[in-house]
Amino acid sequence: MKELFNVEDIHVGVVGLGLMGSSIVAALLIAGHPVVAIAPTDTDASEADLRISHQLDLCSHAHLIDKLPVSYLEHLTISQDYDLLGACSVVIECVIEKIEIKTEVYQKITAAVSSKTIIGSNTSAIPISVLQEKVLHPERFMGIHWAEPAFMTRFLEITCGRLTASEHADRIFNLAHQWGKEPTLLKKDIRGFITNRLMYAVYREIFHLLENETASQEDLDKAFRYDAGSWMTLMGLFRRMDYTGLADYGTIIDNLFPQLSNSENVPVKMQEMVRTTARGIHNGRGLFSYKNGESNEWDEAFANFNMEIRQLASEYSAGKMNDYLKP
Amino acid sequence: MKELFNVEDIHVGVVGLGLMGSSIVAALLIAGHPVVAIAPTDTDASEADLRISHQLDLCSHAHLIDKLPVSYLEHLTISQDYDLLGACSVVIECVIEKIEIKTEVYQKITAAVSSKTIIGSNTSAIPISVLQEKVLHPERFMGIHWAEPAFMTRFLEITCGRLTASEHADRIFNLAHQWGKEPTLLKKDIRGFITNRLMYAVYREIFHLLENETASQEDLDKAFRYDAGSWMTLMGLFRRMDYTGLADYGTIIDNLFPQLSNSENVPVKMQEMVRTTARGIHNGRGLFSYKNGESNEWDEAFANFNMEIRQLASEYSAGKMNDYLKP
Repeated sequence: MKELFNVEDIHVGVVGLGLMGSSIVAALLIAGHPVVAIAPTDTDASEADLRISHQLDLCSHAHLIDKLPVSYLEHLTISQDYDLLGACSVVIECVIEKIEIKTEVYQKITAAVSSKTIIGSNTSAIPISVLQEKVLHPERFMGIHWAEPAFMTRFLEITCGRLTASEHADRIFNLAHQWGKEPTLLKKDIRGFITNRLMYAVYREIFHLLENETASQEDLDKAFRYDAGSWMTLMGLFRRMDYTGLADYGTIIDNLFPQLSNSENVPVKMQEMVRTTARGIHNGRGLFSYKNGESNEWDEAFANFNMEIRQLASEYSAGKMNDYLKP
Repeated sequence: MKELFNVEDIHVGVVGLGLMGSSIVAALLIAGHPVVAIAPTDTDASEADLRISHQLDLCSHAHLIDKLPVSYLEHLTISQDYDLLGACSVVIECVIEKIEIKTEVYQKITAAVSSKTIIGSNTSAIPISVLQEKVLHPERFMGIHWAEPAFMTRFLEITCGRLTASEHADRIFNLAHQWGKEPTLLKKDIRGFITNRLMYAVYREIFHLLENETASQEDLDKAFRYDAGSWMTLMGLFRRMDYTGLADYGTIIDNLFPQLSNSENVPVKMQEMVRTTARGIHNGRGLFSYKNGESNEWDEAFANFNMEIRQLASEYSAGKMNDYLKP
C-alpha cells in the first residue's frame, strides 16, 4: 500500500545546521536524497562542512553505509542562499526553538520554494498549529521530529497541525520508511506530542516516588532501566501487554490508577536543578554528580550503545518479526 | 561497603515450582547456592525436575554458566517435604497470588525454619505489610520480586513491609549482587511497588492517547519502542535527564504535567479485553491479533532478545561504566 519514491529524484532541504541539523542532513544523504543544506548563521556555515563529514564517518563506522563517506558529499550543497531551496520537494527546518526566529526562517523558505513543497519543523517545543500560521500553505506544513543521532535512531514523529492535510502527512510518513525509520503519525496537535507525553507521565511518577523517599535515586533509576529496559527495544507498550497475557491488567489498573501521581508542579529536585543551572554531564552537576572525564565516558558509551542497540533492534524488526511491522 | 557472602554456604529454599519458581531455582543454582525446592502441589512435584533442567540448559545456551548444567543439579533437592527447609537461611515463596494459599504456605515454612531465616515473597500483587502478618517473625519478611526469566534478567525489587527490619532487607539487597542482579530497595510498602507504578503511569497516558484517537495503536506502540527503547537499557530515567543536559525539563514539566491523563478508570479498550478474556499471544486475541504460530515466534524472539540485551547491558555496566554502579 506504500507509495513508491525514487529518493534520488527528491531534493530535500534542511535549514539550520547545528548538531541536530547536521545529523539530519547525514540521515537524508545516506538515504539517497540530494540535499540542500542552508546555514542561517555564519557559525553554522563555517562548521557545517566538517560536522557533516564527521557524521558520515560515524555512519560508515556503524556500517550504515557501504560506499565511502565522501561519495555522499557529492549530493550535498551547503549554502547561506535560501534560493537554492527552489528545487526541493521537502524542506525541514531545525533552527532554535524561538518562534520569532522560526517565523523569519519560514518567510525566507516560502519565498524560495514552489507551492507544492512540504515544509516540516523539527520542533519539540512549539505547537505545529502555531507554526503553520507563519507559512503560505499551512496544509503542507507539519512536525517532522527526529531523535539524536538522526542517522542512527529509528524514531521519527510526524505531527499534523490543525490545518495540515492528511495526504501530505501520509506522504512524509511513507517516505520516512525509505529513511530507515519506524515513523509514528500523530493526527492531532497535542502538547508534548506522543513521546514527551509518555515520558513525562513516567517522570511525574518517578519524581513522586523520589519526593516520598520510597527508594533512593539510584534505585529508582535502576528499576526502569533493568525492568522496562529488558524488553522495550523489542516490544512497544501494547505489545508487551499482549505478550504477558493481559489477564491481570484490568484489576491492577483499577487498583493502581487512583494511586498514581497527578501532580501539576515542578518537582522540588528539578526546581533545584533549574536554580543551580545544573546541566548534567555537560557541566558535571546534575541529579548525579560527575567526576572529570566522566561526561566523555557517557558520550562515548552512548555513541557505541546506540550503534549496537540499532543493530539489535533491526534484527528483530526484519525477518521473523516482519509481520509486526506491517499494520 | 558490601557484606561478603560465601554463597556455597547459604542454603536457599524456594516454595512453588511453577514457571517462575523453577526459573528462580535456576538463578540461585547458577549463583552457587545449595537450593531446596519445595513443590506444594503434585503437578509441580512431577514436572519441576524436567523444568529446572531445561532452565539450566537455557543458562548454558546463553553462556551464563561454564560448567555442565548437570553439575548444578547436584546442589538441588526437590521435595514436597517442608521440613527440608530447616537448613535454609533464606526461603522465597512464589506460589499463586491468593492470600489464603500463601498463608497456608507460610505456616508450613514457619514450622520448618529457624527463627533467623529470612522469608521473602515473589508477589507483585499483594502488599508485603499484609503478608508479613502471616509469619512468626515479620521483621524478617520482605518482598523479593523477580522478573522472568529470573536467571536472565538483571532486575530484582526488594520491598520492605511496615514491619520489615532494614538490616534484613539490606542483607538480601547485598546478596542479590551475588545473583548477578541490579537490585532496587523499596523502603515503603507502596501499592504497585516501583516498577508497576512507573509502568502504569505510562500505560495511563498511552491509553488516554489511544482513546482520544491522536494516533493509531500501532504508532503509539512504536513511539515508545523506538524512542525510549534506544537508550533505556543504557540509562535510567534520571541519568537520561543528566545526559540530555537538564536545561528544558523545568519548563516542559510546567507546561506538560497539567495536560497529562489523571484518569482513575480502566480504559475502554482494556475493559473489552477483560470482557472477551483476550490473552494476547496466549490465545491469539489481544490488543493486536495473531495468526497461527505467531505466538511461538514472539516467544522465541523474546527468549533470544533477552539473552542478547542482557549481554549488551552487561557490557555497559562493567568496565567503563563501572562508576555508575557504585552509588
